[in-house]
Amino acid sequence: MPNRNPNLTRLKAGYLFPEIARRRREFAASHPQGERVISLGVGNTTEALLPHICAGLEAGARALGCAETYSGYMDEGLPELRRRISKVYYGGRFDIDEIFISDGSKCDIGRLQLLFGADTRVCVQDPSYPVYVDGSVLQGVGCKEGAKDGASGYGGITYLPCTAANGYFPDLSAIGRGNLVYFCSPNNPTGAAVTKEQLAALVGRVRETDSFLVYDAAYSDYLRDSALPKTVFEAAGAEYCAIEVNSFSKSAGFTGVRLGWTAVPKTVKYTDGGSLNSDWARIMATIFNGASNIAQAGGLAALDAEGLREIRSLTDFYLGNAALIRSALQKLGVPCMGGFNSPYIWADFSPEKSWDVFNRILEKCRIVTTPGAGFGPAGEGFVRFSAFGHRADVEEACLRLERL
Amino acid sequence: MPNRNPNLTRLKAGYLFPEIARRRREFAASHPQGERVISLGVGNTTEALLPHICAGLEAGARALGCAETYSGYMDEGLPELRRRISKVYYGGRFDIDEIFISDGSKCDIGRLQLLFGADTRVCVQDPSYPVYVDGSVLQGVGCKEGAKDGASGYGGITYLPCTAANGYFPDLSAIGRGNLVYFCSPNNPTGAAVTKEQLAALVGRVRETDSFLVYDAAYSDYLRDSALPKTVFEAAGAEYCAIEVNSFSKSAGFTGVRLGWTAVPKTVKYTDGGSLNSDWARIMATIFNGASNIAQAGGLAALDAEGLREIRSLTDFYLGNAALIRSALQKLGVPCMGGFNSPYIWADFSPEKSWDVFNRILEKCRIVTTPGAGFGPAGEGFVRFSAFGHRADVEEACLRLERL
Repeated sequence: MPNRNPNLTRLKAGYLFPEIARRRREFAASHPQGERVISLGVGNTTEALLPHICAGLEAGARALGCAETYSGYMDEGLPELRRRISKVYYGGRFDIDEIFISDGSKCDIGRLQLLFGADTRVCVQDPSYPVYVDGSVLQGVGCKEGAKDGASGYGGITYLPCTAANGYFPDLSAIGRGNLVYFCSPNNPTGAAVTKEQLAALVGRVRETDSFLVYDAAYSDYLRDSALPKTVFEAAGAEYCAIEVNSFSKSAGFTGVRLGWTAVPKTVKYTDGGSLNSDWARIMATIFNGASNIAQAGGLAALDAEGLREIRSLTDFYLGNAALIRSALQKLGVPCMGGFNSPYIWADFSPEKSWDVFNRILEKCRIVTTPGAGFGPAGEGFVRFSAFGHRADVEEACLRLERL
Repeated sequence: MPNRNPNLTRLKAGYLFPEIARRRREFAASHPQGERVISLGVGNTTEALLPHICAGLEAGARALGCAETYSGYMDEGLPELRRRISKVYYGGRFDIDEIFISDGSKCDIGRLQLLFGADTRVCVQDPSYPVYVDGSVLQGVGCKEGAKDGASGYGGITYLPCTAANGYFPDLSAIGRGNLVYFCSPNNPTGAAVTKEQLAALVGRVRETDSFLVYDAAYSDYLRDSALPKTVFEAAGAEYCAIEVNSFSKSAGFTGVRLGWTAVPKTVKYTDGGSLNSDWARIMATIFNGASNIAQAGGLAALDAEGLREIRSLTDFYLGNAALIRSALQKLGVPCMGGFNSPYIWADFSPEKSWDVFNRILEKCRIVTTPGAGFGPAGEGFVRFSAFGHRADVEEACLRLERL
């Protein structure tokens, strides 16, 4: 038979979130009586779409039923949506062919690996969103360096620890020459948001090492402190070394709608002078066929004046949840990061192990969290609480946490 | 800087369809006067969605605006949709965890490569849908065999010529041990549909060589001859060696909606006993986040009794176009394949070169076609006519073809 992809066999554990869902189902099956389980685990939005954005989606669906407004393949994305993203998120600095519409950041992060060779050294914040590492391993990064497994970190990946000791901003000197650096701010899972000075230092280090930066700004609409940068392109020189992924999932509640984008400036070039922008266009044309035109119509509604008010209102709501969870944990004396400028609270239960904390909270409080060790070696001892949930559930969860 | 993916540099030409769009734009810009250009090039649906299916999409969008019916991530796909696909397309033989919902066949074909190692020998029908080859090259297939380019075929890929001489069904003896075979029926671009006997021979050869088969059935709803197999799983033993990709794009007009699926039976195993099904679940969980829930609601509507009547009506319409085009070409004495059981007509203009024919038809008739050479070396001398178009445009195009 054809070979199994050897990179697949290096992915020792299952992907984090299905594993959590499996444990939740097992727990529910073995505990049919008593309180229902509340999920503060996966970062899955729970609140209904607000009316203006939802009307945009409905109109997008309806348009496909009329001869005059029907549309088929729109691989590169609706030009007006790309123009509006450039205007709203980047002050209009990008041409529409520098904004690529996607079906979400996760999908683009999985495809982005195709731009680079398997010999590329990848750097990630530790802890970080698991797709940076798992996607890299799938594409063969580090396959020559033997089979270190996920628990202690993979070969070929440089982990940049983000801990209370360094204020959750890593030591940049570990970024080596010609690395591919993933960076997320506001961070998933820690909730840490970079300052302008930190961002300048990060971009400076990426440039001085001739590295590339993939900047994940999927939570930028949760920033409330106006001094904090909302995009990597606020840093001088980022247009020569960075691309940015972003999404409507957490801002407009589009986790089930599927819409995101990646900004790839034409000024980002390989050593050979080739442009990442044209390679990315080739990759997207070859293995992607565009986001749903209905989702794009919804995205357009989300970025007009009324839509932006709805995004503000929805993110305010989830930030309200975050404040409640953070406050409940602090009352218990649990050291916490995040919960401001971010929908995640990163709670330090060390020296207890993450999965043990996960089990204890599930058994005592019937609350699902996400074990920090799933985000990288430095996540051991932590759990992540997600603020995505109905208010009544969050309030109930906060009461139950007192049992710990 | 990090290395450019060396596999990218092997993709000599741009992806076929954007290249055609570029040439069309150039022609339109340099010929502002006169007749408008009619596209029979890209296989892009043109007719409005029919009412019942469109209402399903609208209801799916509306549901996201209500607290009771809102839904977020649905990575594995709506269970009811998976159940209905199994029932409608496979007589209920598959469990829902053997049906994976996707945002379209093309996207799944790009991801499927991750199941297999870059050392895998790939076999394709020649001509065939370019994504099988381009997707394989992107993942590094044949990278050790040097840089044969796309015009003469890539190293690491076995081309199985499908020509008038062999009735557009290839010599199966070229399939070697442990190959990964892509096969599409009804075929894009030739329109050839396999018979039951041919399918049995194909599956038999795949099994006797310990190979895997990726069967692309995206055009199966165009089959009108009831003796022809609609799925690879009609052949005995296919459940041990085949996976099938399919799509709502060409059946329900969902090119812009984005919905497809892949059937991966649990009985398909690697030599080491590992299951493709569980690896595929891991890949999808890691780098995909599900099709739009709105698209899935539309898919559910498309597969009930009224939806299936609409699919029949829509595919009948495009088959009507195909018959007109085929007849117009035959009147000119151009040998044609396809146009029955398929929305594509494969027209033989040899010994003239494909791109020359493309240019001649564009200049003389202002009709965009697809040059056959873009589908593989054996496509040289052919062009593909797509039957996706408004009826008036197709009728007008048929008149214009008389100028050739």
